[in-house]
Amino acid sequence: MTDPERVAVLAHEKFPDRSKTANGILRYADREVVAVLDRVRAGDRVHDHLPDVQDAPIVADFEAALATAGEIDELLIGIAPIGGGFDDTWRPDVRAAIQAGADVTAGLHYSLNDDPEFADLAADHGVELHDVREPPADVGVAEGRADEVAADVVLTVGTDCSVGKMTTTMELAAAAETAGVDAAVVPTGQTGIVIEGWGTAVDRVVADFTAGAVEEMILEVGDDHDLLLVEGQGSIAHPAYSAVTCGIVHGARPDALVLCHAAGREAVHGYESTPLPPVGEFVDRYESFAAPVHETEVVAGSLATHDIDDDTTAREAVGRFGEQIDAPATDPVRFDATELLEVVA
Amino acid sequence: MTDPERVAVLAHEKFPDRSKTANGILRYADREVVAVLDRVRAGDRVHDHLPDVQDAPIVADFEAALATAGEIDELLIGIAPIGGGFDDTWRPDVRAAIQAGADVTAGLHYSLNDDPEFADLAADHGVELHDVREPPADVGVAEGRADEVAADVVLTVGTDCSVGKMTTTMELAAAAETAGVDAAVVPTGQTGIVIEGWGTAVDRVVADFTAGAVEEMILEVGDDHDLLLVEGQGSIAHPAYSAVTCGIVHGARPDALVLCHAAGREAVHGYESTPLPPVGEFVDRYESFAAPVHETEVVAGSLATHDIDDDTTAREAVGRFGEQIDAPATDPVRFDATELLEVVA
Repeated sequence: MTDPERVAVLAHEKFPDRSKTANGILRYADREVVAVLDRVRAGDRVHDHLPDVQDAPIVADFEAALATAGEIDELLIGIAPIGGGFDDTWRPDVRAAIQAGADVTAGLHYSLNDDPEFADLAADHGVELHDVREPPADVGVAEGRADEVAADVVLTVGTDCSVGKMTTTMELAAAAETAGVDAAVVPTGQTGIVIEGWGTAVDRVVADFTAGAVEEMILEVGDDHDLLLVEGQGSIAHPAYSAVTCGIVHGARPDALVLCHAAGREAVHGYESTPLPPVGEFVDRYESFAAPVHETEVVAGSLATHDIDDDTTAREAVGRFGEQIDAPATDPVRFDATELLEVVA
Repeated sequence: MTDPERVAVLAHEKFPDRSKTANGILRYADREVVAVLDRVRAGDRVHDHLPDVQDAPIVADFEAALATAGEIDELLIGIAPIGGGFDDTWRPDVRAAIQAGADVTAGLHYSLNDDPEFADLAADHGVELHDVREPPADVGVAEGRADEVAADVVLTVGTDCSVGKMTTTMELAAAAETAGVDAAVVPTGQTGIVIEGWGTAVDRVVADFTAGAVEEMILEVGDDHDLLLVEGQGSIAHPAYSAVTCGIVHGARPDALVLCHAAGREAVHGYESTPLPPVGEFVDRYESFAAPVHETEVVAGSLATHDIDDDTTAREAVGRFGEQIDAPATDPVRFDATELLEVVA
């Protein structure tokens, strides 16, 4: 994977509330974001919406980004709709990026490289199309060996999609770096892969290889570090994505779990007729599910409080969450990930 | 899918104890098995090992099968090793089959159609290669709609792989036919697909689409029948395959579960260092896992007793199993599936 300097991030009509990948790039990736593309927020700046990440202008399309930024090395697709498809209204931006000599990176189920127009155009302009969700060809069935590595393995799990599993993983990694703990992130989804520059999109592998895909990554790096921070996916109670969640829990054989939740979330994101079970139940749901393969426990909680305006109310929500799961809890973005790190490391 | 009359079934070195697909074909498929290929049992007959299925000679290779049978329409690969690879020692038989004008059908992760030698040879001889595990291209994310169909949905679940989920599904279908109940099988694995002539190998779809693949099949046929018998896969406590199991449980939204177990099984098949949890625990494991998405319950048990010699001991084992899971139980192969059908239909 190339490591370009100046990137534009596409997040049409979804920034910032439904642009998880874009937000992760702005917050954690080692890139300079020169523009965010969102046609309904053009003219705003990132800081108008997300004050605590790197700032950039929001523009209507790639041409406007180029006019503003002068030079752009890469266009990153920063949104992933349910189903992972490609929205054809993005096509002019991808086309313009390729024509301007920028690589294009996407974490969709849709393959840019298999799109005849994009493939031809990329060949003509000598740019690369990166489909980071495309798994390696040699992923296979789990052998049940992830617990053999030297590192402690910590897995983030959640009550739902989009509750901060990737974010918590990245915040723990940053806290570990600050504390001098030799930790590595094991990225299992498109945003983590873009940020870390390696990893396997576990939701994209053959279903039989779900556990094997995460086991393979853990075996690859687990003897080179003291702590592995494995990015979880989905939720054990999710109508569509529980397969991926469950495969990761059994494949990773984690020593400890960090349970992630979003304050105020009461139904499954995108499946509003399915209420979430009580938050406290998730502790036993994950622990008892994991136990026959590898005993583990929820040692800490991470609560996303971005929908709560004031810190006092957020502190109260974190306190209640900690009581519900009977474990130390915080919001690692709003407050400090150090206390989570101290529990897991 | 073609529906050939005379088939040979490859089961080298694995018949009958590790040849689940071959046994399923012999027991349930609407085909005439003219030979079983197993080089270590050549000279025996199927009835020497499995007295209650259709009989056939066991031969060393495809040439011998042809010499015995005269004409063969299709070679079925009747074994699926852990990982689903192609064993290169089978290559001469596949080659000989194609050269003799026989189609070849396999349910491996390995694609016969992507093997250059087989693809070229098949084109030369005008035969078809069927990779039944290859999922349809349009499978997607579950919408949470499987409970909308008119039919009652019954799902077989298990304590492990190879405990009789496919067999129980087929026995229930046969009992339903006898009883005049309009039932259809929803096949989720290679053997079921070969037997039924349709279906999706759920373990082979993109992990994110596991629940969606089974939902799609249920929506396809669920309004045309009174009862759907969904073939489960793997186990909720399996180190490698739990992802597929869990996706099917949430995707199928079953009205009832039939818990399958093999008498005497104490550790996970192929993962002998992982003991099975107590059998009785599986009832709550499956029910509590399913509940947040769709409430269901284990209404009956199916115990594979083929490793027990006498019927009296088998009856006792079935009785103990029924007590452990607090539900009516039987061995539908050894005894009678009618009592299971009465509970679920």
